Amino acid sequence: MADSTEMRFWGWGSDADAGELQPHIEGWLAQQFGSPLQSPAAPPSEQDVRISKSKLSKRVASGLSSIVGAANVRNDRHARLIHSAGKSYLDLLTMRSGKRIPAPDAVVYPADHDSVRAVLKLCAKRGVAVVPFGGGTSVVGGVAPLRGDFESVIAVDLGRMRSLLALDETSRVGTFAAGLRGPELEHTLRAHNLTLGHFPQSFEFSTVGGWVATRSAGQASSGYGRIDDLIVGARMATPGAELNLEPNPGNAAGPNLRALVAGSEGALGVISEVSLQLSQLPEASRYEAWMVPSFASGADALRALEQAGLTPEIARCSDRGETEMGVAFSGLDGAKAKLLDRYLRGRGVEHGSLMILGWEGASGSIEGRRRAAVDVLGEFGAVALGRGAGRAWAQSRFHTPYLRDHLMSRGVMVETLETSTTWSNLISLYRAVDKVLAMQAVVVGCHISHLYQTGASLYFTFLTPQTANDAAGQWRQLKSAACQAIVDNGGAITHHHAIGVDHKPYLKAEDGAAGIAALRAVKRELDPSGVMNPGKLL
Amino acid sequence: MADSTEMRFWGWGSDADAGELQPHIEGWLAQQFGSPLQSPAAPPSEQDVRISKSKLSKRVASGLSSIVGAANVRNDRHARLIHSAGKSYLDLLTMRSGKRIPAPDAVVYPADHDSVRAVLKLCAKRGVAVVPFGGGTSVVGGVAPLRGDFESVIAVDLGRMRSLLALDETSRVGTFAAGLRGPELEHTLRAHNLTLGHFPQSFEFSTVGGWVATRSAGQASSGYGRIDDLIVGARMATPGAELNLEPNPGNAAGPNLRALVAGSEGALGVISEVSLQLSQLPEASRYEAWMVPSFASGADALRALEQAGLTPEIARCSDRGETEMGVAFSGLDGAKAKLLDRYLRGRGVEHGSLMILGWEGASGSIEGRRRAAVDVLGEFGAVALGRGAGRAWAQSRFHTPYLRDHLMSRGVMVETLETSTTWSNLISLYRAVDKVLAMQAVVVGCHISHLYQTGASLYFTFLTPQTANDAAGQWRQLKSAACQAIVDNGGAITHHHAIGVDHKPYLKAEDGAAGIAALRAVKRELDPSGVMNPGKLL
Repeated sequence: MADSTEMRFWGWGSDADAGELQPHIEGWLAQQFGSPLQSPAAPPSEQDVRISKSKLSKRVASGLSSIVGAANVRNDRHARLIHSAGKSYLDLLTMRSGKRIPAPDAVVYPADHDSVRAVLKLCAKRGVAVVPFGGGTSVVGGVAPLRGDFESVIAVDLGRMRSLLALDETSRVGTFAAGLRGPELEHTLRAHNLTLGHFPQSFEFSTVGGWVATRSAGQASSGYGRIDDLIVGARMATPGAELNLEPNPGNAAGPNLRALVAGSEGALGVISEVSLQLSQLPEASRYEAWMVPSFASGADALRALEQAGLTPEIARCSDRGETEMGVAFSGLDGAKAKLLDRYLRGRGVEHGSLMILGWEGASGSIEGRRRAAVDVLGEFGAVALGRGAGRAWAQSRFHTPYLRDHLMSRGVMVETLETSTTWSNLISLYRAVDKVLAMQAVVVGCHISHLYQTGASLYFTFLTPQTANDAAGQWRQLKSAACQAIVDNGGAITHHHAIGVDHKPYLKAEDGAAGIAALRAVKRELDPSGVMNPGKLL
Repeated sequence: MADSTEMRFWGWGSDADAGELQPHIEGWLAQQFGSPLQSPAAPPSEQDVRISKSKLSKRVASGLSSIVGAANVRNDRHARLIHSAGKSYLDLLTMRSGKRIPAPDAVVYPADHDSVRAVLKLCAKRGVAVVPFGGGTSVVGGVAPLRGDFESVIAVDLGRMRSLLALDETSRVGTFAAGLRGPELEHTLRAHNLTLGHFPQSFEFSTVGGWVATRSAGQASSGYGRIDDLIVGARMATPGAELNLEPNPGNAAGPNLRALVAGSEGALGVISEVSLQLSQLPEASRYEAWMVPSFASGADALRALEQAGLTPEIARCSDRGETEMGVAFSGLDGAKAKLLDRYLRGRGVEHGSLMILGWEGASGSIEGRRRAAVDVLGEFGAVALGRGAGRAWAQSRFHTPYLRDHLMSRGVMVETLETSTTWSNLISLYRAVDKVLAMQAVVVGCHISHLYQTGASLYFTFLTPQTANDAAGQWRQLKSAACQAIVDNGGAITHHHAIGVDHKPYLKAEDGAAGIAALRAVKRELDPSGVMNPGKLL
């Protein structure tokens, strides 16, 4: 069996780290909703959950065992259950629904690239669907155990493939086995004074292979770049062959196939090894909060910073809704809140937009970069709120998914959506999506983050009371309206959550019929039997 | 007919800009070769060149005429001749050979994307091979009029598609028709205080579509990024369909198809429109020359600059061979050369490596960035040579191809080769390739340029007397030995010259069999009849 960090099958992380729903958050939401939250529903217990019966044939099971060892082919209830879904709102609703859960027929834990290849070859031959499974943190259905036209489906868990395979300190290139998780990766690099600088919200559980498969962008992507920008080499096992792209900084040898591996979402093969560009471990960091008069002026300020080459490693700006939610969730007591109000009003930024800026780097360099950025911020009427609020954001940044679990237990729908567009279209896209969300959710907030020279991402969060007896239907209605608004208004259907199942209907808006046909042609070539992650991406 | 800037069919650019072979260059080469250069051979005249007979059927000609107008379907000798080759050494040898030149059967000049689509559709239906033709500056056979299995072949010249289609100044995104050439593009942007910052050596003649099709990297790519990094959207007409990728700064919607357009080399379709990230036009620039003790210390210094985020927009370092060639070609007179020698010896960098560094940007920012870089350079024993030599490089940087023509007229083989690799492998790759070249060429030089966090490119230039009666065979032998040395020693087969015909045998070393199969699958999908640029790339 694999040594892996498992999450609660019905939610995020572990009970030990979950904390509790803080009363001031409950109180504020009740006030917003105009009614108290439901009384707590106990999360489901593992014994009570019914899962589908394993359909894996003995022949396939024995074939898999002969590749990875019998102990690494699991079809026990527990292993199957924790591989039966990712961590989308819909996934968690299903886990709490009392309905029978579709689960993979077995979970296989290969030890290395060659084992992965052998597993895929066997599955292609026997017609067994394969779901590659890294951290299992997909929020778009990316690890759902869909079997397509096949009798059975297995999850291929990369939890045994968790090492630094090679480190080229001169070139700052690390080659990692795909199952390595965020904290392990950073811990290993820290010993060499290096960092990948990739910190998605899922950081504690997600894997390097998963990041590449989904074109992940970390919270510091404005500084370090999104994972697509950091890939210098990759190895992907496919049922029929393998793609082996050696580390190279840049070349003109035809289309860059690294960009075919990135975003392949397990539908072309299993990414087994990845070579990534690293950075020097920052000596120092400085996180700060600022307030700008409006979301639009915040967008202008971030654009000015980015286009002047002055963006800090972390840069985000919340709209009024998210700012109010943030202040409420921070739990400022009445007296302090009043003081803050007075301070903001005095500086013309009451009802403003909260900005979080985080500089990381050589201690000597931060001050100069910060000073130049502060000059720009001043031009947009930004007011400094100090380092406390910045640090508070940094400290809590991986904790939000636990809050979702608490709120779901209290009958609250909690969901996020993200998109990206050019700077010129950013506020118009924001308004269109915000409008659609506000029609169906009580609390709606948004922030700009992940800055590029030519544009940025928008990240929406919304909370509203669940519709009794049809929470999934409520979600579907809202999700489809929001996705339609995104593609109708020039936004990408996803900035960093990937396509999976949920965004599949909208891929055509990105790639067009010809683009999808081209990707399908690649899939037919690399996965002729179609066993790789059916129902996802394409 | 198109208003296009044509080059001399047997060489680069125009007679007016060609100048003459300077006596000190001739003298120095004769000294190196140990024998005088041959007496000048007159370049071929157009009337003397025999070209293949046009095989285009009347039916196809009339179909093409009905799409683009009869005046824009040319099968006269002149139009066919100037579209019969690119500008590789081998191309120019062929033009001078007196042999019959294979030429396209006609040249078609579409006016816009829809015309391109219609032309491709017709060609696919009638089985006519299509060679997309931008500036015609390929040095790897990319525009050779190969017909594959087809009766006839046409060149599709994008010379009528030369406009700025849209400019989003807020997002700094320009959308260009593919046939726009470097100077036109920069001239148009200058009015808006913007630049693309893309200056390949072919800049004066090459086109924006060609840059994207070949994954071009400009001389300032260390600062502005290579063209692949700048593509935010693209439109590509294919025989069966069209890829239409809207401008977007970054997303996670499956594999990024922009990376399939980049490097497609006309083998998948014709790139008709490209949206690119722009930068603010630099207020000021400062070019300087430095001398470092050795090529290896120069590599270390450039790496240190790059990894510290201090690389100037232009950064290159010549090995001893190229440094000596550069000093000789610059034509320093005897007294000045002696002074320079003494100066360098006094500072411990005689027989050193010449470095060119060029800062561009806001006038206020250059000084600070330069000071920080100079501190780093000092650590590697670099000695400043001042701005004169830097400016001289900048002024002559588009002129080298003319020198090749002069030297070819004098019986000299002049060729360049380029590759890229990680920093840790750079000097070892350099030594391996240099060794192979030195065995077959008298004068060999190399420079490092195009810096990345994880590596850089190597650019080799070599000159040697042509083998009498078999200059092409001499080139083939040298080219294949050098390419083999590159791929055997971990280098990319091309950093920015692309694959074309010449590098095709080595694509497998980059992409492997599975990668090539994946690309062929895309080609089958988008170009089912295989008319697009047969014999190139795949």
